Amino acid sequence: MAPKALDYESLNENVKKVQYAVRGELYLRASELQKEGKKIIFTNVGNPHALGQKPLTFPRQVVALCQAPFLLDDPNVGLLFPADAIARAKHYLSLTTGGLGIFLIHLSCAYSDSRGLPGVRKEVAEFIGRRDGYPSDPELIFLTDGASKGVMQILNCVIRGEGDGVLVPVPQYPLYSATISLLGGSLVPYYLEETANWGLDVNDLRQSVAQARSRGITVTELLTNLSCNVYCYQTEFLTLYYLQVRAMVIINPGNPTGQCLSVANLREILHFCYQENLVLLGDEVYQQNVYQDERPFISSRKVLMDMGLPFSKEIQLVSFHTVSKGYFGECGQRGGYFEMTNIPPKTVDEIYKIASISLSPNVPAQIFMGLMVNPLKPGDISYEQFVRESKGIIESLRRRARMMTDGFNSCRNVVCNFTEGAMYSFPQIRLPPKAIEAAKQAGKVPDVFYCLKLLEATGISTVPGSGFGQKEG
Amino acid sequence: MAPKALDYESLNENVKKVQYAVRGELYLRASELQKEGKKIIFTNVGNPHALGQKPLTFPRQVVALCQAPFLLDDPNVGLLFPADAIARAKHYLSLTTGGLGIFLIHLSCAYSDSRGLPGVRKEVAEFIGRRDGYPSDPELIFLTDGASKGVMQILNCVIRGEGDGVLVPVPQYPLYSATISLLGGSLVPYYLEETANWGLDVNDLRQSVAQARSRGITVTELLTNLSCNVYCYQTEFLTLYYLQVRAMVIINPGNPTGQCLSVANLREILHFCYQENLVLLGDEVYQQNVYQDERPFISSRKVLMDMGLPFSKEIQLVSFHTVSKGYFGECGQRGGYFEMTNIPPKTVDEIYKIASISLSPNVPAQIFMGLMVNPLKPGDISYEQFVRESKGIIESLRRRARMMTDGFNSCRNVVCNFTEGAMYSFPQIRLPPKAIEAAKQAGKVPDVFYCLKLLEATGISTVPGSGFGQKEG
Repeated sequence: MAPKALDYESLNENVKKVQYAVRGELYLRASELQKEGKKIIFTNVGNPHALGQKPLTFPRQVVALCQAPFLLDDPNVGLLFPADAIARAKHYLSLTTGGLGIFLIHLSCAYSDSRGLPGVRKEVAEFIGRRDGYPSDPELIFLTDGASKGVMQILNCVIRGEGDGVLVPVPQYPLYSATISLLGGSLVPYYLEETANWGLDVNDLRQSVAQARSRGITVTELLTNLSCNVYCYQTEFLTLYYLQVRAMVIINPGNPTGQCLSVANLREILHFCYQENLVLLGDEVYQQNVYQDERPFISSRKVLMDMGLPFSKEIQLVSFHTVSKGYFGECGQRGGYFEMTNIPPKTVDEIYKIASISLSPNVPAQIFMGLMVNPLKPGDISYEQFVRESKGIIESLRRRARMMTDGFNSCRNVVCNFTEGAMYSFPQIRLPPKAIEAAKQAGKVPDVFYCLKLLEATGISTVPGSGFGQKEG
Repeated sequence: MAPKALDYESLNENVKKVQYAVRGELYLRASELQKEGKKIIFTNVGNPHALGQKPLTFPRQVVALCQAPFLLDDPNVGLLFPADAIARAKHYLSLTTGGLGIFLIHLSCAYSDSRGLPGVRKEVAEFIGRRDGYPSDPELIFLTDGASKGVMQILNCVIRGEGDGVLVPVPQYPLYSATISLLGGSLVPYYLEETANWGLDVNDLRQSVAQARSRGITVTELLTNLSCNVYCYQTEFLTLYYLQVRAMVIINPGNPTGQCLSVANLREILHFCYQENLVLLGDEVYQQNVYQDERPFISSRKVLMDMGLPFSKEIQLVSFHTVSKGYFGECGQRGGYFEMTNIPPKTVDEIYKIASISLSPNVPAQIFMGLMVNPLKPGDISYEQFVRESKGIIESLRRRARMMTDGFNSCRNVVCNFTEGAMYSFPQIRLPPKAIEAAKQAGKVPDVFYCLKLLEATGISTVPGSGFGQKEG
């Protein structure tokens, strides 16, 4: 009998091709061990609170009140909630009286506008304006269920087929390889220079594009360029085809490499996008996670605006942010936004249409976003506590970043760049020939083999570098 | 200069082809009028709380406590929250100590398992077991950000290209036409018989499939078969091609037609899927919205199990549910689940992998799902209130269903089947020739024209039947 629609043999090939290392072999093995009662420390995703980071009190107070608005009518509410949390809750509840005409009490149990609550998008626009020194338009800001959903929506518009390429930094965060694969596009890798503190060499970029453009991508190239997981889902292209590179992804601060890009580097990148006619996707979810002062975070948008005409009006840019990282670390709420610069109105309408299919992003996370971009001000009752808590989180992350890299560099056969930002360290570990031999025996990539051993021995669950498409070694 | 990656001309065609009536011309015009200060009543999506349905108190109390777990340490917590809400909040907070090893305080600020919290999936499995009289396996239940996200994940696995067809009821909910279009598949319509209270004629089904199978779909066929929005995105197939029908969607209780399918009808449908080797997608999000007693809701899964071998072990079924409808009506939380029956483990792994790309469904909505499937029991402190509130909601919906259909049928040139379930009425309005003429003048489909006039005159925002792909007239 013919295979059924949901038998493995007859599934959509793009689904099967997806490789997702973050929840890959290591994660699954770790989960098994945990089921067997072993204590596991997961480091595979940036999951701040699972690693002991406490949520900020004030945002949780506000969202709790928005979830249970009837508390606002309770004479005792003041015993459990400070006045500024109550005021802010009323503010967000009132925002929903516009939009879809929802009554105060009904917030977050009604679909919002598919782009998110207009009032929250206004707060995001004001935050971006303050941050960059250039005004931002709420109509060009869409709220999403986490930044990853936004990335998927935009790539879905960009990728038309396997002939469309997207430049992705290697080592890279598997969200991009997985999404590009799922959408049937082609990943075009560019390398971050470990020896140059994960800086970005634009000449290397030009080469990657020229190579892809002129000759398309072939299996053999990918075999040499890429490590297994980015490569696997490409094996089917046995023939050369013309490849058009349409977009470039930068992750700043870097995941998994933790670097902050310099203004000069960002200008080079934008200039490159202008010349090559690429839309730039700026993954800036770690903009609050910066652990040194020499090189603060600067948004791609600010650098673009500073460049002036023609660039500031010509280069298409989509920037992504989230409530999951920084001192908020509210991963489980699934809140994010993307802002569009120089994207034509007709395209914005199309993206709105696609967002409408899943009706609306979840409303509580939209409120967390509002609280993140519109924080407490000096004088507010909860301000002291808010600052104390958020400072504590960033400083402890900063300490840990220092500890991690120092620790790695103090080990024999291990080198690691300092983690300037984000939440990850990406050490290079030189394995002795015997270990590599043993890995071959076990039929595993050496670093996967090492990580598995590390997991069994210590209960620390990591992600092998090959999972990020890093070069051998 | 060549168009940029995000210029309209160079977008993914599947994105452009998507037609989404629920937020289409009518909705946009209504939003404009609202901006101009006109009072608009939106009826375009089932948005219970926006239409005056109050959220249930108990679930909101529990989720508020989970959002602000520090309240549990406050001596005054008992003044604002009943003991059973506090106990239930502790229960859900404790569920997260398994899974990803999150500490009590960190709930909902950490990613959960990509399939959802194991403890909540267990509660869902128990609910399904009680409902159907057959045990259910939590490992085959995935929690999602609303049911629509689950539908998209499953269709993404089923649809490999435009040669893959999915049977969708007409009139239908645009989620399906939009998603199939976005994924580049082909919608194969089957008609619900308005004259037979929106029943499903399996002979008509056979014809639809035979037709599609043997000859593929052509533009002219679609022109005659379908109204504009389902048709538009197909216009590109100018040549015949072989079409393989792989899946069938049923919406029970019906959206937008409100019927409840009988056991006999469900048996016929399942038998048909068995013969035609189709996976059945059972959209059962309205299972709590039933307004008559003659024909209660019965799940596809129960009917399948009752059919016994070989069917109960052979037919692939995915069932969908949500917290957005019923007496919960928690649309804004975006919570849902799907349960897989007779889906091979290797496929379940693939679906898990795809779910992992967006990391995890939002955690608060997972708790709402737990609260919906595991409601309060007699004797619980809040039980009386819970029953009073939920009864009140369903009875008011029942009253309104009766009022609507009676009201429609009392109008000249309007007929409407009684709304047995769901949240919608689908009346047929016979327009006088002059109105149809005027519509032609305005270059609009007659019913779109009528709905626009209705909106301008009364502020009531509706969805034209053609938006659901209903036959002319």
